[in-house]
Amino acid sequence: MSMPKSLNRLIESLSKMPGIGTKTAERLAFYILRSPKEYADTLVRAIGDMRNTITFCTECHNLSEGGICQICSDPKRDKSAICVVEDPNDIISIEKMGYFNGIYFCLLGALSPLDSIGPEELKIEKLLHILKTQKIKEVIVATNSDEEGNTTALYLARVIKPLGVKLTRIAFGIPVGSNIEYADQPTLVKAFEGRRLF
Amino acid sequence: MSMPKSLNRLIESLSKMPGIGTKTAERLAFYILRSPKEYADTLVRAIGDMRNTITFCTECHNLSEGGICQICSDPKRDKSAICVVEDPNDIISIEKMGYFNGIYFCLLGALSPLDSIGPEELKIEKLLHILKTQKIKEVIVATNSDEEGNTTALYLARVIKPLGVKLTRIAFGIPVGSNIEYADQPTLVKAFEGRRLF
Repeated sequence: MSMPKSLNRLIESLSKMPGIGTKTAERLAFYILRSPKEYADTLVRAIGDMRNTITFCTECHNLSEGGICQICSDPKRDKSAICVVEDPNDIISIEKMGYFNGIYFCLLGALSPLDSIGPEELKIEKLLHILKTQKIKEVIVATNSDEEGNTTALYLARVIKPLGVKLTRIAFGIPVGSNIEYADQPTLVKAFEGRRLF
Repeated sequence: MSMPKSLNRLIESLSKMPGIGTKTAERLAFYILRSPKEYADTLVRAIGDMRNTITFCTECHNLSEGGICQICSDPKRDKSAICVVEDPNDIISIEKMGYFNGIYFCLLGALSPLDSIGPEELKIEKLLHILKTQKIKEVIVATNSDEEGNTTALYLARVIKPLGVKLTRIAFGIPVGSNIEYADQPTLVKAFEGRRLF
């Protein structure tokens, strides 16, 4: 007895997603198989609806419902400050804060040699083109503080610095309201490295 | 700016799957959104194909392409020995071994209070019915050795023992060919508890 072909094909499709290995894909496929038919229908419809209604902004790759996104098309935004993020959901978090009034640029991912994501897979060429052709005063790199995010930030620093534009990285350290005692070592190191004069 | 509705609906659907929290569901939804359209199409087709071609055996809930599965309908199998597993993929592993010639019974899951999976969600009533009405000499419990699998095994012992049928649990211990030095503590405890006379 072996795995039915249609099940194998679904497992193969699912395991292409990031962080989903064969074992997890198997578990998910079995869940879809064993749950009520409505679940599979809802999932399939949700995938189709999302793909049909959402596109990426042609300027910054933020989510958009066609053409240029809300932020890029807002005349009140400061077009001389660009915040570089990995994904559109990062924009949602930063916008919630209400502090940043510039525009964004989504790389749509982070460098990850293990997943064969190199600079060509991200939108870095396009970012460099914007920096070369538009009047940008500051680039704020807000990629994650994990391995991929940091590698991406270092790579960006290497290719952007020669352009002479002001380049900053958001600060990492002890989260506000949390206890130093409970901070993990890498966070504590970041907090010390990033210390500032009073 | 907030998350588009169609994206939210997909995240909600995905996060219903076991082991997929909101953050992971977001990551998967973005992956589906950002990958080429063919990927979403393949995924949607694979889900539909699987749901349309695979059913569960009406006897044992193994995978089947209609009605009773290959194993239940095989006259050469020993119908007096039932191996109870969590999922059809466990059957595939056990069959590969080629040692067991009895039949199976898939619970289609394991007890998990955290995911609100109680005895009613599994096929335990049906298993008890089989044990009461058919001539079964031995029930081998082959649920996983994780928390859910062990809880399920203990529950089965409680409800099956009163029926007077021989009930066994597969052995857990040091994997064959591996080094005692590298075994984790719970495995080592199992290996000692399960020690046998030469």
